[in-house]
Amino acid sequence: MHPSHTVTIELADRSYPIVISSGLLDDPSSFAHLPSASAAVIVTNTTVGPLYGQRLERALGPQFPVVHTVTLPDGEQYKTWDSIAAIFDVMLRNACDRSTVLFALGGGVVGDITGFAAACYMRGVPFVQVPTTLLAQVDSSVGGKTGVNHPLGKNMIGAFYQPVRVVCDLDTLATLPQRELAAGLSEVIKYGPIADAVFLDWIEQNLDALVSRSPQALAYAVRRSCELKAQVVGQDERESGLRAILNFGHTFAHAIEAGMGYGAWLHGEAVGSGMVQAVRLSHRLGYVDERFVTRLTEMVQRAGLPTALPVLDEADNAGRYLELMRRDKKAAGGAIRFVLIERPGCAVVRQAPDAAVRAVLGGS
Amino acid sequence: MHPSHTVTIELADRSYPIVISSGLLDDPSSFAHLPSASAAVIVTNTTVGPLYGQRLERALGPQFPVVHTVTLPDGEQYKTWDSIAAIFDVMLRNACDRSTVLFALGGGVVGDITGFAAACYMRGVPFVQVPTTLLAQVDSSVGGKTGVNHPLGKNMIGAFYQPVRVVCDLDTLATLPQRELAAGLSEVIKYGPIADAVFLDWIEQNLDALVSRSPQALAYAVRRSCELKAQVVGQDERESGLRAILNFGHTFAHAIEAGMGYGAWLHGEAVGSGMVQAVRLSHRLGYVDERFVTRLTEMVQRAGLPTALPVLDEADNAGRYLELMRRDKKAAGGAIRFVLIERPGCAVVRQAPDAAVRAVLGGS
Repeated sequence: MHPSHTVTIELADRSYPIVISSGLLDDPSSFAHLPSASAAVIVTNTTVGPLYGQRLERALGPQFPVVHTVTLPDGEQYKTWDSIAAIFDVMLRNACDRSTVLFALGGGVVGDITGFAAACYMRGVPFVQVPTTLLAQVDSSVGGKTGVNHPLGKNMIGAFYQPVRVVCDLDTLATLPQRELAAGLSEVIKYGPIADAVFLDWIEQNLDALVSRSPQALAYAVRRSCELKAQVVGQDERESGLRAILNFGHTFAHAIEAGMGYGAWLHGEAVGSGMVQAVRLSHRLGYVDERFVTRLTEMVQRAGLPTALPVLDEADNAGRYLELMRRDKKAAGGAIRFVLIERPGCAVVRQAPDAAVRAVLGGS
Repeated sequence: MHPSHTVTIELADRSYPIVISSGLLDDPSSFAHLPSASAAVIVTNTTVGPLYGQRLERALGPQFPVVHTVTLPDGEQYKTWDSIAAIFDVMLRNACDRSTVLFALGGGVVGDITGFAAACYMRGVPFVQVPTTLLAQVDSSVGGKTGVNHPLGKNMIGAFYQPVRVVCDLDTLATLPQRELAAGLSEVIKYGPIADAVFLDWIEQNLDALVSRSPQALAYAVRRSCELKAQVVGQDERESGLRAILNFGHTFAHAIEAGMGYGAWLHGEAVGSGMVQAVRLSHRLGYVDERFVTRLTEMVQRAGLPTALPVLDEADNAGRYLELMRRDKKAAGGAIRFVLIERPGCAVVRQAPDAAVRAVLGGS
């Protein structure tokens, strides 16, 4: 057992704790003192459900008179309104009322779907995140972004809706496929360049330990990532300014994901490559030096993530990327906004001349 | 022209004005000083669109570089997620970004759909209510309840999401079918018993003028209704307490609508009968006197609304109603909560013994 840590997201009457430890999933006290409820509904998928579903159900037993489970197919391609509708069908058929609490048991996709379902069911019921992937523990389960994809764009439909608690059981990381661990590390690495140069150094020194799943290293990485995300989200819940820095690498990543077809690359893989492109653009525009570009590229590579940009269009690859990035929901009036690294630990959000973006896109 | 009145909904950073006057729809200044936007999207239906769509489009011209229009089929049966999806398709195909402003041009159904679409598009874009029915002007366009129906229940899927402005053009009431005018009057009448005994007297004295569409009478009824709703919503945006009184008559009404099939009765018609049942229950439980029951029943009748309860089940009508009411989303753990009139102008929310409810349901 590691010592249990609690990080608090400070959002006035919507504040909530992120509890980080091993052994949480089986412990009824992890789920004590939630809003009093007539029923719990666990939403999970066909991969995570068989591993942890029954254990969570047992842990919820003491507090909830009834526990229903909805098991969705696994994969980003199921992050659609149809999955939301499937959850509603179960809830309405079981006469779940406004006091029902939803539990998202799984990775980022399950968390985003469950959070959005909670936001919309009878105009809002409470929900708890129980993230079982590194990516979800350090990023997607924290901060209240929920939603589903649309054939014409990722995360286009959704809501800002905060969970009432996040329960990160570090033991669940043991069953994570290596590819998904690496994908999670991209979001850990992200926090260094944008917010904390000291953490960046720590990641660089502990990257091998993280890749080989040292429990101590993972415990610290999850905790520090959540602390940094809490600081940012606490200042800007609805992304009117500061919060946008959390999208470092994501403008390129969303274009990669859309261009390759959702699911071809994992989100974290696309972010790995996206961070490399973003730091190259930062250098080209006169911010960080070449040495920092090399340093971050090596970290992304050591984490087991792609650093190159996939070719989407043989004839005009840069043009295709620009087209996709202009359609991103962060774009405003067709202007693409990039998160750039001004210096290690400090990010800014800027537009960039097409020529500079083309040079980065063409030269990878 | 009537003098223009503005009622403000006070909700801190989500406060917004309700502008009430004739001649607003054609006047670009009605839509000035909205959030700066790259595009406007008018959502309307096949009945209202041909009457007012082009006029609104012209009035928006000076402020919005592009105006798109989505015309939905008319009717409560189209208040579904499919209509939301149709709006998203148009918006995404036209590359509408986060700064797009939606305009709900129509009655309560159009307003509920459009508000929910605005709440979910890219996790929230601004929207303006332009209600063209009496019911929408006095009730549904104000207060931020948005959503769609589910085959298993009305308004089961939705969000609390406030508009940035409500523009009530009183001239649009001239084209309203008489049946819909009557349906709107039920929500006007509602405010008297629950919140304002003086307004109740005024309605009683002016009911014939309202039914015959006296512009002066309608102008005052809309304004006073909005003022009363603003007072209630300003104190309890998310219906954790006080706001529930606005559902006077609605517990019975929702059961009527669900039992008859959505669209058979207009919502306002069901509320008319529902208020009569609720005031009968109030009397049976020892609150208001018999004279008040007669008084309210006569007002509902004079407005042109049904006062009797439709028979849903020849064998056990009361049982069928109880079953439907237990499934209402206001019910908590199977307990039905009724809005009862304690004395004219003052409502309370209470459970009631099944026997008393059965007596009311059986005796109509």
